[in-house]
Order: sequence, then C-alpha cells, then structure tokens
Amino acid sequence: MSEVRIGLVGAGWMGRAHATAYKNVPLVFGSEPAVPALEMLAEIDADRAELAVESMGFRRWTTDWRELVNDPDVDVVDITAINNVHAEIAIAAAEAGKPVYCEKPLAMNAPEARAMVEAAEATGVTTLVGFNYLKIPSVGYARELIRSGEIGEITQFRGTYDQDLMTDPRFPFSWRLDRKLGGSGVLGGMASHVLSFAQFLVGDIVEVCGHSGLFVKERPVPTGGTGHTARAPDDAPMREVENDDVVQFLARFDNDALGFIESSRIGTGRKQWLTFEIHGSKGALWFTQERMNELMLYRHTDPPAERGYKNILTNAEQPWYGAYHPIAGNELGYNDQKVIEARALIEAISSGEPAEPDFRFGYRNMQALDAVIRSIDERRWVRTDEVG
Amino acid sequence: MSEVRIGLVGAGWMGRAHATAYKNVPLVFGSEPAVPALEMLAEIDADRAELAVESMGFRRWTTDWRELVNDPDVDVVDITAINNVHAEIAIAAAEAGKPVYCEKPLAMNAPEARAMVEAAEATGVTTLVGFNYLKIPSVGYARELIRSGEIGEITQFRGTYDQDLMTDPRFPFSWRLDRKLGGSGVLGGMASHVLSFAQFLVGDIVEVCGHSGLFVKERPVPTGGTGHTARAPDDAPMREVENDDVVQFLARFDNDALGFIESSRIGTGRKQWLTFEIHGSKGALWFTQERMNELMLYRHTDPPAERGYKNILTNAEQPWYGAYHPIAGNELGYNDQKVIEARALIEAISSGEPAEPDFRFGYRNMQALDAVIRSIDERRWVRTDEVG
Amino acid sequence: MSEVRIGLVGAGWMGRAHATAYKNVPLVFGSEPAVPALEMLAEIDADRAELAVESMGFRRWTTDWRELVNDPDVDVVDITAINNVHAEIAIAAAEAGKPVYCEKPLAMNAPEARAMVEAAEATGVTTLVGFNYLKIPSVGYARELIRSGEIGEITQFRGTYDQDLMTDPRFPFSWRLDRKLGGSGVLGGMASHVLSFAQFLVGDIVEVCGHSGLFVKERPVPTGGTGHTARAPDDAPMREVENDDVVQFLARFDNDALGFIESSRIGTGRKQWLTFEIHGSKGALWFTQERMNELMLYRHTDPPAERGYKNILTNAEQPWYGAYHPIAGNELGYNDQKVIEARALIEAISSGEPAEPDFRFGYRNMQALDAVIRSIDERRWVRTDEVG
Amino acid sequence: MSEVRIGLVGAGWMGRAHATAYKNVPLVFGSEPAVPALEMLAEIDADRAELAVESMGFRRWTTDWRELVNDPDVDVVDITAINNVHAEIAIAAAEAGKPVYCEKPLAMNAPEARAMVEAAEATGVTTLVGFNYLKIPSVGYARELIRSGEIGEITQFRGTYDQDLMTDPRFPFSWRLDRKLGGSGVLGGMASHVLSFAQFLVGDIVEVCGHSGLFVKERPVPTGGTGHTARAPDDAPMREVENDDVVQFLARFDNDALGFIESSRIGTGRKQWLTFEIHGSKGALWFTQERMNELMLYRHTDPPAERGYKNILTNAEQPWYGAYHPIAGNELGYNDQKVIEARALIEAISSGEPAEPDFRFGYRNMQALDAVIRSIDERRWVRTDEVG
Repeated sequence: MSEVRIGLVGAGWMGRAHATAYKNVPLVFGSEPAVPALEMLAEIDADRAELAVESMGFRRWTTDWRELVNDPDVDVVDITAINNVHAEIAIAAAEAGKPVYCEKPLAMNAPEARAMVEAAEATGVTTLVGFNYLKIPSVGYARELIRSGEIGEITQFRGTYDQDLMTDPRFPFSWRLDRKLGGSGVLGGMASHVLSFAQFLVGDIVEVCGHSGLFVKERPVPTGGTGHTARAPDDAPMREVENDDVVQFLARFDNDALGFIESSRIGTGRKQWLTFEIHGSKGALWFTQERMNELMLYRHTDPPAERGYKNILTNAEQPWYGAYHPIAGNELGYNDQKVIEARALIEAISSGEPAEPDFRFGYRNMQALDAVIRSIDERRWVRTDEVG
Repeated sequence: MSEVRIGLVGAGWMGRAHATAYKNVPLVFGSEPAVPALEMLAEIDADRAELAVESMGFRRWTTDWRELVNDPDVDVVDITAINNVHAEIAIAAAEAGKPVYCEKPLAMNAPEARAMVEAAEATGVTTLVGFNYLKIPSVGYARELIRSGEIGEITQFRGTYDQDLMTDPRFPFSWRLDRKLGGSGVLGGMASHVLSFAQFLVGDIVEVCGHSGLFVKERPVPTGGTGHTARAPDDAPMREVENDDVVQFLARFDNDALGFIESSRIGTGRKQWLTFEIHGSKGALWFTQERMNELMLYRHTDPPAERGYKNILTNAEQPWYGAYHPIAGNELGYNDQKVIEARALIEAISSGEPAEPDFRFGYRNMQALDAVIRSIDERRWVRTDEVG
Repeated sequence: MSEVRIGLVGAGWMGRAHATAYKNVPLVFGSEPAVPALEMLAEIDADRAELAVESMGFRRWTTDWRELVNDPDVDVVDITAINNVHAEIAIAAAEAGKPVYCEKPLAMNAPEARAMVEAAEATGVTTLVGFNYLKIPSVGYARELIRSGEIGEITQFRGTYDQDLMTDPRFPFSWRLDRKLGGSGVLGGMASHVLSFAQFLVGDIVEVCGHSGLFVKERPVPTGGTGHTARAPDDAPMREVENDDVVQFLARFDNDALGFIESSRIGTGRKQWLTFEIHGSKGALWFTQERMNELMLYRHTDPPAERGYKNILTNAEQPWYGAYHPIAGNELGYNDQKVIEARALIEAISSGEPAEPDFRFGYRNMQALDAVIRSIDERRWVRTDEVG
Repeated sequence: MSEVRIGLVGAGWMGRAHATAYKNVPLVFGSEPAVPALEMLAEIDADRAELAVESMGFRRWTTDWRELVNDPDVDVVDITAINNVHAEIAIAAAEAGKPVYCEKPLAMNAPEARAMVEAAEATGVTTLVGFNYLKIPSVGYARELIRSGEIGEITQFRGTYDQDLMTDPRFPFSWRLDRKLGGSGVLGGMASHVLSFAQFLVGDIVEVCGHSGLFVKERPVPTGGTGHTARAPDDAPMREVENDDVVQFLARFDNDALGFIESSRIGTGRKQWLTFEIHGSKGALWFTQERMNELMLYRHTDPPAERGYKNILTNAEQPWYGAYHPIAGNELGYNDQKVIEARALIEAISSGEPAEPDFRFGYRNMQALDAVIRSIDERRWVRTDEVG
C-alpha cells in the first residue's frame, strides 16, 4: 500500500471538507493504487491549526505555507486558502515540481490564472481545480454521451445557479457582498460552476453579453456568527451591498452553439438550482444539483410514439458510483463529490495521466467571467480573448 | 337569450378553431349573457368557404372581407386571415365601430400595430388579441397571485418556447422558413407567446439584447401535404432556410426585473415547452404548457422547515375552470383555451368592459419583437421605444 | 355524409356530456364515416327535457324511454339514466336490434349485468360501456405496448382512484353515501374504473380479498344545491353515512399476476388520482389521470447505464390524438375522452366491428366488484365466479 | 473528549459500513458528547478479521464474539453478523449490561425477538435496531409533522419496497433465494423496511392478509463473485428458487387506519422504490428513498385555490441535516444514513435517553412479518398477536 502525502493549505470549511474526503477515499475506493495521508497542514491561524490537527489527524502543521510547499515529505500541495493567495502558492508548488490541487475560482482574474497555467505547464506537474460538481456521476455520464456523439451536434445550452439564501432582505451583510473581498459576487462564486458545466460538456466560450441587477441595496451588519450562521439584530446598522444579486448572460460557443447562463442569490424557491439543459441534433440532457443522483436523457432517435425525457438514476455503469453501491437508487451526497475528486487526484498522480479539470480549464473559466464583467460594464458583446 | 353575431375572416386551421370554440361556449358556459352565432364567413377561396360553411354551419358567406365588415348583422369582426392583412381589416372594423378579435401576431411590425391601436382607441371599440395561452386558468391564477402582492417585487423572469418539430434536418421547407412569409421565424411565431407571458405577469419590457442561430441551413422542398403534414421525398431539391432556428435574448423590464427569453424550433426533447419561471421577493411561480393544468408555487413566507414548490392542479377556485368541473384533476385541453378566449370576448362585448389582452398589449408585444430583431442585427442593446 | 341518429336516455350531467361529445365529433374527426345526430331525448322530467332540447338541439323528445327505444328513426340507444334502470332499457334496446351505449356501472350487480350480456349477444348488437378513461390516448398506447409484448409477462398491477372531495367532515351528505342509492360507494363509483384498467391492460381477475373503512361516520344534511355544489349550514342535522370511505383489496389475475387496488373519497391530497403501475418481465408502465397527457414507460431492455422511466407526452403516433394536433404537447382534456368515446361508437356502428369495452367487459367488472363486497363482508378470499 | 468504545461483531459489507460510519461521526457532528472508537472486532474468519483491522483501524480483534462481549474495554456491542446469531449475542450483551446495536432483521422470528426484548428490558440497557431509513431527515421530519397533529387522524398508508435486481431471469441464484438462509425473501429483507415506516409513522399493525408470487422459478448457479457481483455462465446448472419474488399484503393499524404494503425483487423499473404515502384528515405525505432528500407534503388547510403537494428539500430545520450543510439542496447520501444512526447511538448512550428504534420496535416488526407469512400460508386474515 503506497501513500500520497498531502500538504493542505487552509483549515477553514473547505479545508475540513478536503480532509474528510481524503479519509473516506480508502473506505470507498480501497487502498490501490495509493492512499492519501494527511502529512502536513499550513494554516496562518495557529489556534485553528492546532484544533484542526487534533480533530483531523494531520501528522504535522505550520503557519507558513512556504514551509509546506518545500517540505520533502509533502507530495501534493492542496490549496483551500482564500482566493487572493492561490496564484502565489500554486506557482511556488509548480516550481517545486509538485502536483497542485486548487479550489475554485482558480485566481482573482484571468491574467493571474494564466500565470498559474504557465508555471504548471513549464514543469509539467499535475493540476486539478476543485470544480466538484463535475465529479457527479450523472455529469460524468452526460459527458460520455456527448463525447460519443449520442446527443449529436449541440445547438443550445441553458444553465443556472440559483439560490435563495439572500432573498430575505434581513439576511446580513457578509464578505461576499464586499467588492474587494467577494469580487463580482454571484458571478465568481456561482456562475463559475455553470460555466464549468458549459466548458466540460459543450466547449469553449468565445463571446458573451450580460446584464445584472442589485435588488437588496443594503443589509444589516451582523453581530455574531459567520457565513451562513451570521445573525443581525433588528437595530443593526445597515451597510451598502457592493455587488449584484443577479447576473444573466448570453454566450456563444466555439462550435456556434448558443448559450444562456444565470446566477442569482435571490432566486426565490431555488436552493441549489445548479442546472444545465443541452439540446443537440440527436438528443438532449437535463440535470440539476438538487437531484444530483438523476440525469434526464432524451433521444430523438427513439420511435416517434415513445419519445420523451427519461429519468436515469445514477448506477454502477456510470462513472464512480460502482465503488459505492452495486444497485441504483442508493444516493450519493454532496460530500461524496469531494471524495470522488480526491480519488481522481490520487489516480492522476499515481498514473501520471492528466487530471481534469486542470489549470488551463480554470483559466478559460476565469476568462469567461472577466469577459462577462466587462460586457456588463460596457454594455456590449465581449470576446473572451479580449480580457487576457 | 341574446346573440352576438360573429363575422369570421379566414377559414384555415385557426378559423376552424375559432368556429369550434364558438360552438362550445354555450355548452360549457351556458347561454348568459349571450350566445355567439356564426353569422358570416369571409374567405377568399370560394371552395374552401363553401366547405367550411357546410361543416361549421355559418349562416352566410362571402369572398370579400369588406362586405363582412360592413354587414349590419355582423356584431364582431374576428380576424384569422394571414398576418399581412390584419391591419387593414382591423382598422376598417374599428372605423365601422365594431369590436375586433384578431389573431396574433397583431401585425407585421410595430408601426403597423400602432396604427391599429390608434384606430381602435379613436372609436373605443373592444379589441382582443388571440394570445390564448393567457386564458389558461393556471396562468390567470398566477396573475392574480402577482397582482395581489403574494409573490412580492419581481426580480427575475425566465421564459422559453421550445419545440423540436424541426430537429430532423429532413423536416421539409415551409413558408415559415421563408423570410418574406414567415418573417423572423421563431421570434414572431413563438417568442411572441413568451413575451405575452412576460407582459401579462411582469410588465413592459424596456430594453433587449439578443442573438440567434441557424443550424439546419437548407431543407428539402416537400411535394405533398401542407404545414405539419408536408413530406419530402429522399431526392427532393433543397432550399435555403431564411430565418433562424433559435433565438435567445435578455430583457429589462420597466420595474428593473431581469429577463431571459428563448425560442427554438430545434429544441430537441421539448414539444410545447412554453414556460415561465418568475422569482419575486416573497415567492416564485413556474409553469409549462406541457402541463397546462398545473402551476408550481413557492412561498418564501412558509415556515423554513417546509419551504418548497407546490404543485397546484387547476381547480374551481381559479379562473374559468369551475365552468367545466367542480373538482380538480379533470384536465382542460388546448382547445378549451380557445373556448375560454371566445367566452372572454362575449363577456367583454356584453358588459362593455375592456377585453384583455387588447390591441395596445399586442402593439407592445410587437415593439419588443422588433427591438430584438434590431438588437440581433446591430449586435447591441436596443430600447423598445426605438422601433416605432 | 351519413348520419347515426342518437336516442339519448337521461338529461342529467352525464346526458349533457354525451350531447356535447356528439357535437364535437365531426369538428374533431370530420364527417366520415358518419356524423352523430341528436335525434331524440328521453327524460322523465318534462321541464328538464324541454330545457335540454332547447340548449342542445335534439330534434324530438319524450318522457318515455320505451318510445325512444322503439322509434324507427333512432339508430342507437344511449343510456345515461340512473343505474337501476340500465338493465331494463338496455335489454329492450338489444331486443329491438339496436346498438346500445350504456354508462358505467353497467348494472346494479353481476347477475343483472349478465342478463344484459345475454340479451345483447343473442341479437348480436354492438354494445359499448362508458369507461371513458380507457379512451385516453396514453392508456390506448399502453395497451398497444402490452399487446405487442413490449412489457413482457406481467407480474404486478397496482392501481388507485383517490379523491379528497370528502376529506372535510363538513362536506355534506349526498345520495352517494346512502347504501340504497349509492351502493357500495367508492367501490362501484371509483374502484370500478381502476378495475377497468386492470381488465383492459392485464386481464381477468379470478380472486379478491379486501377490507374497507368508514372514518367520517356522519355528515350534515345539505339545504341547497346538489352533488358537488351542495352546502350545509353549521346547524344542519347530521345523517349517518352508510357506506365506506376507503376500500383496499388484493387481486389475483388469470395469468397469476398479483394486483392491488384502492379507492378513497378521503384520499387527502389526491384529486383524480386514478393511476396504474404495471410491472412486466421486460418493462413497466405508470399513468395517472391527473396527468392524462403523459405515459411513463420503462424498458428493461435499454442499456444498463441508461435505464429509467421515460415520460412520453401524448402524440400523433398514439391512438386518436392525431385528429386533434399534429405535434405533442397540446393537451387533451377530460371532455375529449367522451368525444373519443362517441367517435368510437360511430366507428363501430359504421364498420360493424365490435366496440370496446363491451357489455361482457362491463359484466366482468361487475363480478369483481361483487366479489370484493362479499370478501369484505365475509373476511375471506372470494373467487369472481362465486358471485354469479 | 470522551470515547465510546465500540465492539463490532462481523466484518462483512455491513460491518464495514458501520466502521465507516463511526469514522465519519466526529467529522460531521464534532467530538461532543463523545467520539466512537473502534475498540475491538469479532469476526469468525481470522483472515478477514486481520484485513478489516488493517483497513479500518480497530485496536484489537478476536474470532470469538463472547470475548468481545465480556471485554471490560468494550462499551457497546454492535452486531452485524448473520441473522441466526443475533439473538444469542444480543442477549449475552444485555446480560453483561452493555448497550446493543443490532442490524435488522432483529431475529429469525417473533419468539426469538421477544426473548431479546425481555433480556434487554430486564437489565435496562440501551438498544438500537439498524433500520437506517428511519434516520433520513425527511422521514424524521415526517414523523414530527404527524406527532404534532399537522396531518390529522391517519386513515390510509401505502408503502412499497420494489427493486428490479432480479427481473432478469439470468440473474443468478443466491443465498437470499434459499429458504433456510434467506427465509421469506423479500418479506424479511425488504418489506420489513416498509413496515418500519408504518410503525414509525402510523403505529402498530394488528391484523394482516397477504398473497405472494414466484415468477422466476429457477435461476442459474453462479460460478464466481458473491451477492450483487455474482455471475453465471450460459451453461450453468439451474437451481429451484425457494421463496417468492413478490409479496403484497393488507394491514389494519391499531388506530383503524387501512394499509397496503408491497415488496418485489422483480419490480421492473424501480431501483430502491422504498416509499410511503400517508393520508390523514388534515394532510398527506409522500416519500421515496430514490429521492431521499425530498419530502412531499400536502396540507388540506391551505386555501382551496392553492392546495397541492409541496416538494420540500431536506434542510437545516429538519433533523440532522444542519450538521452537514447550512442550506438545502446539497444532498445527503445513503452512507450518511448510517453516520446519523451511529450518531444517534452515541447520543443515546451519552444521555441515557432511549434510542429509537429499539428492540421492542424490532420485535413488533418481526411479529407483523410472521403474521404475513402465516396469512399467506393459511389464506386468511391473521392477527399479529397470534404469532408469539
């Protein structure tokens, strides 16, 4: 039984999710070709680091990510730290010749992401970006169908990522609503996932045109809790929201398919409405993360009397699921997406095959986001290769 | 029992649908306040006219619509003739002081539609445009909910009208694909219906930006049949298609809501995927014509533990349905939409109240369509008041 | 254009539905091979008869059904009168050599139904029972699939007919709750329809065992309205309910398939939850009247990776629908079921082919109902051939 | 951080599932009030034991379960061994004063289960039976709704557990089809879960009447693999199947509600169709394991115009889910059911409160199963208290 020794940067919610995933990889997939080992944690906050080490069982820890990157017993650098340090750490890891697994969004903007791609491609290290929704078996199977030509030439893509977390105007202000920390809001945090579906399933986006809207213009400042658990008292001071609640944009793909993408944090009624519908000349596909164990497939080649969308439960003939259950209908959950992603990392490193989605994928994703931002600002169509 | 004497112009498929609807109005709704009578048919093709009169039971017929408009025993002028004569007939009827019921699209373009509005408003006659999907009880109830504030301030609208009638590249050429006869294709024939939902439920559209695509660039010329029944032999000559298969556009409403609309005649897997989803600050609504007897309603005011979309079957507490059935679950069909529309005409004429949707509604619909066309041509955002 | 001259017995709600259906037959299906004509109405209440004749346009009327049966210009006897006169009228009509179209339930009990079968088979007249749910295109297509072996050997049938009309204990007493008039309640009025699916799709039932329950033991006596519109004041006297709210029973088919059937008038949440699910060795089918324009089909012969229930919208390749619409997605409604049933009558009479479901079918249905009643009374399995 | 030291009996598939669950408990729920520790494994097969110890990290192991039961450092006895040793081990553990967590079915028959209950109640130890589907948050929330009276008086229960694993007649023979090892087949292995829903949500069952069917009478004997992975060559010898493919039965509850339950291993099209629908005087509930993150709720107290089933995604206001995610829509999977069950065990032991479902619950479940078997054999209604 060989080991892949993980160096994890960041012990926040996502760091914890990665550590949990590593622990489950051998329980689900067994110990071949290798088992991930929690070798070292780098976390700037020493108290948090100690706590995490205790509860998650890392062998060692440090407050300096450079130490981790350069440690000879760290085989992989896994980055879950805040977005504005992704590039620096990833480039250092690539230069140290180590595989890099980085959470999304890959960087702060397209030029930064390009620098990461260049560093990684220069040394040829394995790279992986944490677009975990691509690791859902239904999504993997959708890709297989498209790749094998079963859907035909793709003509239309519609994708959404709607949540209603912030529908309530009393939902408190958070860093996500601050332009400096949260950037373009629903665009970077949510639309990026829809774009990852579009790229993964249809292809590169060459041109976009969008608009956006802010409906809850100020929110109360919370006094306790963080993130989803923050609460603001009735008399809390109000703070101006700095990015938009809703974004919608049109997209043109390199194969001429037409696309539409929407993200909203006030998409009332929708919880994780991360969806795609793809129409092709021979069939169609429909998916939502709210029912991640299902894929809707339509074949125009069925007899005319019985054409219709078929609801396929994830099963052992689709990617990954067989490691969990021999029969369909016993669902996987969100956490399993990260287990599968960690497994994919181990497989890629062990085999030397490229991982997917890699940094180049993450860079193209970032280019599309930057193009949408410019398109909204300048109220015009913008090509993705205009933005660096 | 009083009568409303109908003068119907056009004996094609839609003319027949209107005649059928008139016959069913008293069977469903009874004979108060009035019963429609098939007084006169105007049809340019005399053979077709005779046939229609025999099978549908009109009292009289003519090949000249002017005779019908001016006949003292015709109370209402009902126009189902081809689109390029709508304006002339409707204006003549309005000037004769007669109510006008006109199929959609109201006219060939926005200026023509405006002339119709002006003629009708000058004499104050009742006008009604045949957007029959607005007569679905679920849609009517959706409007009641929105009007009464139950959904709150509306922030997002997404609507589609996708069919896959023409997914097969062997589906033959028809007049709909000829720019002169079929105009902008899926935009006028299909997106207009989505726009009617947007207008009816959200409000006026002030600005649009779109794109479109043609994927099946030529189609075989049929040798027999018409419309949906046309068939082309394997060696049929090919003809170039002159308008686009797919249109997608963004829209901004007068209340700042963001909208997206799509129409496709190659929307593989979808048959009558005429849908809307509306998000508001207090709730959301979802509807598809493929399940016209259902409305999905979400209330953000429900207790947090049990928030979710509720599937409401059309019932006797919603508009019109009670005339058919006392209990929910016995569905209405497409034809019933036209029965209800004809009933609404009779009610408006009898009561003197305005009908809905009227010519002004049809004109605003046409303005939005013209703005989308210009937006696609000029690759920019276009205001609906730019187009006349 | 030839005529089939209808003699209709009964001018209640169902009589009116039949008359409406006859009027729509030529509008939907054209005038070949024949057009139904409303020749004569027999209605015991003269005032009601006159009213019906005026609004529906019968040529003649009488208060004596015998006159109608024997009238030389009546080609078909259509019976919508109350259940306890079905047998007498139908037998008279059969003896007069006339086709008989009779509403369900065919008779008051199995022996009475058998007498009707014997009379009809003796003279060889066409017979048709008004199980209109069998005229839904989805149901017809389900039968085609089963007949052609696509579902394989059938092993399980589950069917329900649940409504929640009477969930509210203040819903008033009606004749349906009186054992003399309403018989076995949900069994005769509702479970009979589920049984008709079972017979039509699977085969004859040989043995049953059931139980039943009464939960709302008394209800207020209404002061106004009838049927679904009846209302009872708060201080209305209460009357004891005489038959059960819910029935459930097991059934064994002649091909050894296992079945379960339920009917409830307090099936809270369900409106017209008339459903079947059928499992066979090669596939499965699922249907509900609440979505009568859809059929769910599962094929175990699909590739393992993509097995799932497919949602098929009614389309022109399925029975009857093509007469309405060339494309799927424009729904039929409840009333169209009766139009199709009336059309089937005209076709059978014109062609001399047997109609379906005929009196023998109705008799087998009645036998199963009687066996269930005995099974509940005697708390044991009862064979359907035990009850006459 | 205190520890609960687990002694696990059995290292098969289910033993592994328990060990995985224990490892995830602190990752999901944190380390308060206690963390489960894998203290000792008892597995009769020494090779398997060693392998399991290595991959799962038990501190010690033995081939003798008695040693484990009596070990002073084992706090809890967890039984995943084959069914025919459950009773002996559980009774020994109870007599040793240790909490017992036992997989379902609790025992081989009702008298044996009763002996287990008596032993446990005599010493007052905590007991828990592994009906993990009761740990689904949607199911837990359904119970809360029923307990608080939101659904009213329950009148009907319908539940199923259909799979189509064995629809293919070439699916090989396995121990499940051998009466000695697999007992009553789908009844014990599958219907028991439906019964657990019935008991948990409605109450005790007092009387049953069922029938069953065997359709694939012989199957090929496999040459390799076990359980779901077994495969038989084309020329494999055939072996007679000894228990039934399908069971259906009626049930009467102690509150007079009527119930129907079905299980099938040839329920073509259904994968984990473990469902319940419950109708009450004020509302209704519907659930399927195939969509374990959803619960359908109908409230008859909603305004008449908007009554309908509401699809509620599991959320943090429902039991357990909040430990995973703050927002709805990020699904839990099958494995999470066992994590929650293990967590419930730790909570009960730490608090001294009874766990649920306990041995008495498992005994009542077994009684109902035994009554169904007798009912099928003797073709009559059987009371659950007839069987011991």
